[in-house]
Amino acid sequence: MPKTQSTARKTAKRNAFYAQSGGVTAVINASACGVIETAARHSRHIGKIYAGRHGIVGALTEDMIDVSRESRETIRGLEHTPSGAFGSARFKLKGLDQNRAEYERLIEVFRAHDIGYFFYNGGNDSMDTALKVSQLGGELGYPITCVGVPKTVDNDLPYTDCCPGFGSVAKYVAVSTLEAGLDVASMARTSTKVFVMEVMGRHAGWIAAASGLAGRKPHEPPHIILFPEIPFDRPRFLEKVKQCVTDYGYCVIVVSEGAAYPDGRFLADAGTTDAFGHTQLGGVAPVVASMVREAHGYKYHWAVADYLQRAARHVASKVDVQQAYAVGKAAVELAVGGLNAVMPIIVRQSSRPYRWTVGHVPLSEVANQEKKVPREFIAPDGFGITDPCRRYLAPLVAGEAYPPYRDGIPAYVRLKGATVRKKLPTEFKV
Amino acid sequence: MPKTQSTARKTAKRNAFYAQSGGVTAVINASACGVIETAARHSRHIGKIYAGRHGIVGALTEDMIDVSRESRETIRGLEHTPSGAFGSARFKLKGLDQNRAEYERLIEVFRAHDIGYFFYNGGNDSMDTALKVSQLGGELGYPITCVGVPKTVDNDLPYTDCCPGFGSVAKYVAVSTLEAGLDVASMARTSTKVFVMEVMGRHAGWIAAASGLAGRKPHEPPHIILFPEIPFDRPRFLEKVKQCVTDYGYCVIVVSEGAAYPDGRFLADAGTTDAFGHTQLGGVAPVVASMVREAHGYKYHWAVADYLQRAARHVASKVDVQQAYAVGKAAVELAVGGLNAVMPIIVRQSSRPYRWTVGHVPLSEVANQEKKVPREFIAPDGFGITDPCRRYLAPLVAGEAYPPYRDGIPAYVRLKGATVRKKLPTEFKV
Repeated sequence: MPKTQSTARKTAKRNAFYAQSGGVTAVINASACGVIETAARHSRHIGKIYAGRHGIVGALTEDMIDVSRESRETIRGLEHTPSGAFGSARFKLKGLDQNRAEYERLIEVFRAHDIGYFFYNGGNDSMDTALKVSQLGGELGYPITCVGVPKTVDNDLPYTDCCPGFGSVAKYVAVSTLEAGLDVASMARTSTKVFVMEVMGRHAGWIAAASGLAGRKPHEPPHIILFPEIPFDRPRFLEKVKQCVTDYGYCVIVVSEGAAYPDGRFLADAGTTDAFGHTQLGGVAPVVASMVREAHGYKYHWAVADYLQRAARHVASKVDVQQAYAVGKAAVELAVGGLNAVMPIIVRQSSRPYRWTVGHVPLSEVANQEKKVPREFIAPDGFGITDPCRRYLAPLVAGEAYPPYRDGIPAYVRLKGATVRKKLPTEFKV
Repeated sequence: MPKTQSTARKTAKRNAFYAQSGGVTAVINASACGVIETAARHSRHIGKIYAGRHGIVGALTEDMIDVSRESRETIRGLEHTPSGAFGSARFKLKGLDQNRAEYERLIEVFRAHDIGYFFYNGGNDSMDTALKVSQLGGELGYPITCVGVPKTVDNDLPYTDCCPGFGSVAKYVAVSTLEAGLDVASMARTSTKVFVMEVMGRHAGWIAAASGLAGRKPHEPPHIILFPEIPFDRPRFLEKVKQCVTDYGYCVIVVSEGAAYPDGRFLADAGTTDAFGHTQLGGVAPVVASMVREAHGYKYHWAVADYLQRAARHVASKVDVQQAYAVGKAAVELAVGGLNAVMPIIVRQSSRPYRWTVGHVPLSEVANQEKKVPREFIAPDGFGITDPCRRYLAPLVAGEAYPPYRDGIPAYVRLKGATVRKKLPTEFKV
């Protein structure tokens, strides 16, 4: 991919809109920091930065935070603060032909606040929204420069070598697997023999794969990884659990929330009912644990990390923080350089030593696509990762980037969050 | 409590037995490090150190690790390595009158290896075992010095101001609550409104209480803490959830695994059944989450930290690491100073600034007792912590004590684990 080329342009100074979309991560605010700090250095092109409260919803409802009212220290502090400081949203813009009113409202809001730049920080769905907003320029005649800023713990965006947000969740999962594995190893003689940890990843098993970094040898946890990419084979799985307990004394299993039977049914959908007979939508970890107990009777424990994994800024990957900042910075540079409807990507130049740079691709290429874990990254038996996978993953969790602490607790920043005064007389219901 | 007084004694040099017992922690190995390094400095009294593999089971089965075969660096590295490096056990020694054979076997093993010091690292049950072993001296005529080394994430040992292991799990829980709380806050507008995190503590709510350190003001998570000490009142709980979502837009709930109804029935025991009609022993988090959904229909997420919380050395409290080392060191000093059947304790001298020292109490005082969270530490409505509780907890999570990392993963040490050659002709079945 070509590196960003900054071509000088003559253009009137206009304001920028930035927003966060989809599930948040430990480092999405580092991207915000990159966007905001870089925009400040391009004051010839970019005036004020307005951040949408809760993604595109903030644009539609004219609910925006005036970023210039935040101190420089607060903006800097975003780099070490997890979650979406401006509020995120799960909200997908419909197609222009399906809901023209939303597009017209966007133009109304953007025009009222002289917004000429649109930076949208999110994953697959969000890049689709960014692509749609870029249509305001073409089909609807409102001039706007749209640049996506990639973010997703799932690591499933195409073209980019990895997604900011993934490296930190990968590190959290690898560290947690290592630590819990040591715990089970020490208890197994007289107590827990099987430990199941559920991690995120409904369609792609990247996060589950990262647990493989915790061990190098067959006896080191995790002993079994269950990927969404590999149809679940109950007898083979149970046989492998038994073999691990026999050979190593215990078995550590990492299961992706998206692990599924060959017919596509999720393992988590186990048909469990509560005391009232209602279907119990539970995690997959207890389902797998029960399965093991029924077959072998082993004492088990299970954990569901859920939001803890993607919010764990306290154990973030330094490389991930750097990349998150870099894509935010690049987005602004691409925009003021005259590019439109693009997304910066991470380009890997080498794995050992790890070298990367920032390129970009058209939004139209990335929207609504998913990159799964390739078969050659998964061990032949389907229960582990291969050396090529390890080479791919290892650099992404490298380095520590600890937040500052106050009285033993991370000193995460909180925005003042001054709301931009509304200029439109009308409300918009989303 | 009086400080340890080292009274010089003339005694033949004898070997020491050290073992880990009960659920492990992020810092129990730091206590091991304290015992081993201090014993090495008392070579006039203590010869070799043999570590029981899997607690007292290692003594009964003559399965011991020769600690002198480990390098000085490995022993030092125990200070930053979580879980029980020597293997722990859930095994309670029966009373002398119920199982004399076990006591006779212990004497046999100890005599064969000239063991004159017994250091037992554990919680309530383990102190009971240590106390029983000390009877070898009196009733059975085998001279041995027994000292307990306190450890438990539950923080429920009496007399000691806090228990090594607790400060680190408290820090993990406070940090995780803060981080997950920020995550939910950013998603709540269009997605998850209620987040439930389950933490350990079957009888005492200390760990749940620690989550309260994440927020200072009513709108800051956690909004609701469910303690084992407070009988669960479903209508009041559901009302409070609704109020939080109305007032703050979301609600973060931390629930102790031991939360129970007024009749003592655990919330976790929800009578759920799986697809085969078998009782499903699940966590309490999904039960609480379902309860909220049924009553209010809010979208929810839940997490169960399980072993992750007590193994999380990567975010250990520095104070906790120091205290874990200190009680290990003190145990050896007490023993060579001539004290027997005692346990070192942490004595708080002041909270602000935090000052502590090490005292000791007789094992007979601590065995099988539980210290619960006092009512004055719990908010009047039963759903939060008070300022006195905050003053008690805050110093215990203070300071960071990061492990070294290699390639982005903590470099935890693994023992060589050379087994001490057996001297007895007989096997002993446990």
